[in-house]
Amino acid sequence: MGRPNLQIALDNSSLSSALQSISLAGPIVDIVEAGTILCLQSGMEAVRCLRALYPDKLIVADTKCADAGGTVAKNCSDAGADWMTVICCATLATMEAAMKEVKELQVELYGDWTFEQAKDWYRIGIRQVIYHQSRDALLAGDTWGEKDLEKLRRLIDMGFKVSVTGGLTKESLPLFKELDVYTFITGRGITAAPDPALAASEFKAEIKRIWG
Amino acid sequence: MGRPNLQIALDNSSLSSALQSISLAGPIVDIVEAGTILCLQSGMEAVRCLRALYPDKLIVADTKCADAGGTVAKNCSDAGADWMTVICCATLATMEAAMKEVKELQVELYGDWTFEQAKDWYRIGIRQVIYHQSRDALLAGDTWGEKDLEKLRRLIDMGFKVSVTGGLTKESLPLFKELDVYTFITGRGITAAPDPALAASEFKAEIKRIWG
Repeated sequence: MGRPNLQIALDNSSLSSALQSISLAGPIVDIVEAGTILCLQSGMEAVRCLRALYPDKLIVADTKCADAGGTVAKNCSDAGADWMTVICCATLATMEAAMKEVKELQVELYGDWTFEQAKDWYRIGIRQVIYHQSRDALLAGDTWGEKDLEKLRRLIDMGFKVSVTGGLTKESLPLFKELDVYTFITGRGITAAPDPALAASEFKAEIKRIWG
Repeated sequence: MGRPNLQIALDNSSLSSALQSISLAGPIVDIVEAGTILCLQSGMEAVRCLRALYPDKLIVADTKCADAGGTVAKNCSDAGADWMTVICCATLATMEAAMKEVKELQVELYGDWTFEQAKDWYRIGIRQVIYHQSRDALLAGDTWGEKDLEKLRRLIDMGFKVSVTGGLTKESLPLFKELDVYTFITGRGITAAPDPALAASEFKAEIKRIWG
């Protein structure tokens, strides 16, 4: 198994607070994400700022694009994003249009997606999916469990590079230790910590301890 | 049957071009939408500008929100939006969180949604849905047909106020003449016309001719 990446999700409601969050943890993480909340608040200026500050990091625009894939993806790419997300209920036509404009496209798994759909995504060339606990579901009391691990295993077996996100703490990482996870994504697990740089370092240390 | 509203979708890739589009057709339409492309490009500043220019119009932020419903909806509302959209594959928890922050929430129907889900949306208090032909599906050659009309009929019979969108022209309006459509949404049908104000007036005249 490879060592999973660590991705920071900037879901701040202002660009300035996002930049404050990333300025502390940025040098430590592998991938920087302009979260949906931030994209909708500050537009692609957020992505341009992240690209300006981190010319050598992978940058993701978490648009959760559902339509007009070509236009949205071109706009993300023009702003400096490497990757972009689409929502799982987007049509294959939307995904195919988006794929042409960004280096890699990631499908965000929300709600009642199926493994039949996942086969279609793989068939058209998509290699990344993001497995979630919805933030609102977590607020409503849901948590990680065997049902999630089993789905993760199937997606990985299908050949996908799978990112995992939703209420992760470094204490929750051992739950995934048998799985070839591609990336762990965390937002407030780093940005809301008293010392974001320390929190990011501890995440990375725990990933190294488990996956080598 | 009531007379359907006319909504203009501003799916421009820059705020200035969106303002140019709306400056011509704005006085004529009933509802002004900051489209997803525009929201992702310019952030909530787009909604703030539309509110500043049209203090008395209904304004929709077409975020197609999939998660963090409470935060996204509060941000939209703070910027001056009356309504916001969520994507149909969002969880009920996301929709419920969003409903608390905006005057009305609209569910965008993409991909494989079901009437069972629609019952759940109605049960939690959602009264608006948006029925689409995906822009990318239209580009791939799809068009309106009896399969769409049948679904629209069922949604209206369930009690939803149904908006219709996707490649509409004034020539396509008679197709819907038997249906109590709540709103017709068009973007480039108005904004890309040689005379956007004239195009909007012709849309409205055709709506009046058919629905009285």
